[in-house]
Amino acid sequence: MPTELINALTDRLGARRVIIDPEAMIQHLTEDRGLFKGEAFAVVFPETVDEVSFVVRQAIKANVSIVPQGGHTGLVGGAIASRAIIIAMGRMNQIQSLDAVNSTMTVEAGCTLHDVQQAARDADRLFPLSLASEGSCQIGGNLSTNAGGVNVLRYGNARELALGLQVVLPDGRILTDLSGLRKNNTGYDLRDLFIGAEGTLGIITAATLKLFPLPRKKVTAFAGCKSAHDALALYDLLRCSLSDNLTAFEYLPRFGLDIVLKHADGTRDPLRDTHQSYVLIELTTPDSELNLADRLEGILADAFERDLVQDATVAASETQSAALWALREYMSEKQKLEGGSIKHDIAVPVSRVAEFIDVAGAACKTLLPGIRLCPFGHMGDGNLHFNISQPVGMDKSEFLAMWGQFNRVVHDVVADFGGSISAEHGIGMLKRDELARYKDPVALDVMRLIKQALDAKGLMNPGKVIPD
Amino acid sequence: MPTELINALTDRLGARRVIIDPEAMIQHLTEDRGLFKGEAFAVVFPETVDEVSFVVRQAIKANVSIVPQGGHTGLVGGAIASRAIIIAMGRMNQIQSLDAVNSTMTVEAGCTLHDVQQAARDADRLFPLSLASEGSCQIGGNLSTNAGGVNVLRYGNARELALGLQVVLPDGRILTDLSGLRKNNTGYDLRDLFIGAEGTLGIITAATLKLFPLPRKKVTAFAGCKSAHDALALYDLLRCSLSDNLTAFEYLPRFGLDIVLKHADGTRDPLRDTHQSYVLIELTTPDSELNLADRLEGILADAFERDLVQDATVAASETQSAALWALREYMSEKQKLEGGSIKHDIAVPVSRVAEFIDVAGAACKTLLPGIRLCPFGHMGDGNLHFNISQPVGMDKSEFLAMWGQFNRVVHDVVADFGGSISAEHGIGMLKRDELARYKDPVALDVMRLIKQALDAKGLMNPGKVIPD
Repeated sequence: MPTELINALTDRLGARRVIIDPEAMIQHLTEDRGLFKGEAFAVVFPETVDEVSFVVRQAIKANVSIVPQGGHTGLVGGAIASRAIIIAMGRMNQIQSLDAVNSTMTVEAGCTLHDVQQAARDADRLFPLSLASEGSCQIGGNLSTNAGGVNVLRYGNARELALGLQVVLPDGRILTDLSGLRKNNTGYDLRDLFIGAEGTLGIITAATLKLFPLPRKKVTAFAGCKSAHDALALYDLLRCSLSDNLTAFEYLPRFGLDIVLKHADGTRDPLRDTHQSYVLIELTTPDSELNLADRLEGILADAFERDLVQDATVAASETQSAALWALREYMSEKQKLEGGSIKHDIAVPVSRVAEFIDVAGAACKTLLPGIRLCPFGHMGDGNLHFNISQPVGMDKSEFLAMWGQFNRVVHDVVADFGGSISAEHGIGMLKRDELARYKDPVALDVMRLIKQALDAKGLMNPGKVIPD
Repeated sequence: MPTELINALTDRLGARRVIIDPEAMIQHLTEDRGLFKGEAFAVVFPETVDEVSFVVRQAIKANVSIVPQGGHTGLVGGAIASRAIIIAMGRMNQIQSLDAVNSTMTVEAGCTLHDVQQAARDADRLFPLSLASEGSCQIGGNLSTNAGGVNVLRYGNARELALGLQVVLPDGRILTDLSGLRKNNTGYDLRDLFIGAEGTLGIITAATLKLFPLPRKKVTAFAGCKSAHDALALYDLLRCSLSDNLTAFEYLPRFGLDIVLKHADGTRDPLRDTHQSYVLIELTTPDSELNLADRLEGILADAFERDLVQDATVAASETQSAALWALREYMSEKQKLEGGSIKHDIAVPVSRVAEFIDVAGAACKTLLPGIRLCPFGHMGDGNLHFNISQPVGMDKSEFLAMWGQFNRVVHDVVADFGGSISAEHGIGMLKRDELARYKDPVALDVMRLIKQALDAKGLMNPGKVIPD
């Protein structure tokens, strides 16, 4: 235990903001899926960027590593500590400013995503990042992991939504660019180096975010198709006609709908017949005079003529819209009730996503006949959660013991497609070995050079992202 | 003269692709504005990435620096050589592939911007980057300088339009990521490090670019306002109603319109009365069923009611639209005919652009009464070309001798507004001293650390971007 360090931190932050009691630390050391269990000398709760800088400088002096932690909702162990000081960002939760005409807001890293969304809405603007954990995840973590979600198709990943950052560097210095400029060609783009670096190059303490006009109209639809290929053709038709009015295009296989209908109370199949593939479509516009529902129905009629769509329903109310979204949102949770499931978060070029479902699906079935494929998610981004449910009646642990084998099969197909083995969730500790296997060695080496340049001591969130 | 190096290059590329004749090199050593004159041992014309890599490796061996050059249309001396090998990229000009459903194309760096635009259009897609030099500038240079232009409001800078790059690193290794993924969270964002680095961290040899649905409808309008403040309020009104259908919002002062009307044959004032401020508005949509003209006229009527707009005209034909655009596009060229002009390429938060015009304008008039202010450009991006024409009757060279003084006055106001001293054009050699003065020292130091990490020998486009 680095007593001197703990004393210095306690002197500055006060005992209530430096937790060393193992019981009190536990929620910062473990994570929901139970994949990792960390250990820490202390969890500290800074309230200002200067305090973050102080903690980092003190930790360096003591040669103790630092792990920044946001809402601790990550899925790859990126915020798990090992003999480190955890910097919990939740008390830096102020909305610092909002400029409606510039369409920006500046927020501290510890604001929850939900609070950021709400502050934007209160100013008649939209902050579009949206994902399942939005009630508890923090914007600093969203940026550090370049979070995705259901609105990427229209608005981009977290990266595209940040105009500037404030970062505490691995040496404790503070880098600040919160000016909210749309254009600024004065040197290297440092911002995007910290976004997606999972805290290994510094700690994001604040950000200036892009806002958008608040949508005034929304139309949600659910369509059944003969195949993922037809679903993809429907995507192209919608995108070319409606461009950025198309804000979500989510794919579900019949098996996915089946398990939701089976396990989620109050759900019902919105279409009369069964289809192999489904898509959830959402259009939005800030233009209150635009009749999106008519436009969508016209395009769906066209798609029906072309035999791309077998049946479709357009929500007539917010309640119906929510019911359609529920079919998609229950997917992860309800799959657990079908026994073991092995998961992949992959992306391929959008044009090849249907082909990927075929090829990777066939490869998995060769590995283990009887599996039930559940590839679902952000088809319009080329990003699928390529999940596999165990065969009915198989022993769950026996199935889960094949996790590595399925990873190999699926990720090899991803590599053949020029795809990504981590589209949304990042690398953390979980996928470092996979990264070593699939990433261009030149890219890995450039990553190491940058890490070494900014964090020569290797104390900033060590053991994450970069393979040993 | 490094004879051994030249011989090695000639052996590999052939004598016709290694120019050493001073006469033949001259166009690669000078630039249009005559601000810089470089010198080079040779200009080489590689045709493949392996040849670029070869040239870089040979230059390193000989300890000779390397200057990559695209269309050589830059305005800040970023492609000016000094005792170096110039790598001219123009022969790497192949459109490698286009994926319409993925909305991407992969192109070599030496393609002209115009050729890239055309190839997209041929596939019924839009590549939206558009700027004055598009006939001769090259996409590699556009990315290396993070070029802006007239469509940034809707589509972003060059940075936002690239999904992946191929880069020859300062050590000659090749980094390739041309997979065209919309989501990929597998390590640091190296792409954005090279974009905007002006060739100081490596040579971009190819890129995978984002495409968009081709607009099917366009509406152009020209409005007169009482002030830049009213023009800005009009921007906000349009943006909130029409969101991304608003693709251009360009500001012109009366003085700017006057000089265009005076010096450009065939132009005429589209409005009956004179106004202090003008805006050129363009709306586009890929949705052929959307009646944009009606929408725009409705919003303009609303703005008229609110006294934000004094008069406006909506183009009834492509000819009329082109005539309105000509008023904007002649601005730079025709200002030359009013004597000396001192230029600034600045950005501030969009919300403060009108206030900036007032404050910076007043400061300049204090410095030299009688000047004629001509701030024009991309109001919707907060980016103005803040140009100043000399007082009538003043000696031109006497006025131009004040360039540094005006820079100081204008850039000090920019700094007060949290703005950028180079919104679109970059740093190159021209603005290195200004960068040293205005950039956060921590940011400058991080830039130096990265440069040192990737280019320890300092041979890759030396003397650019990073202050001494």
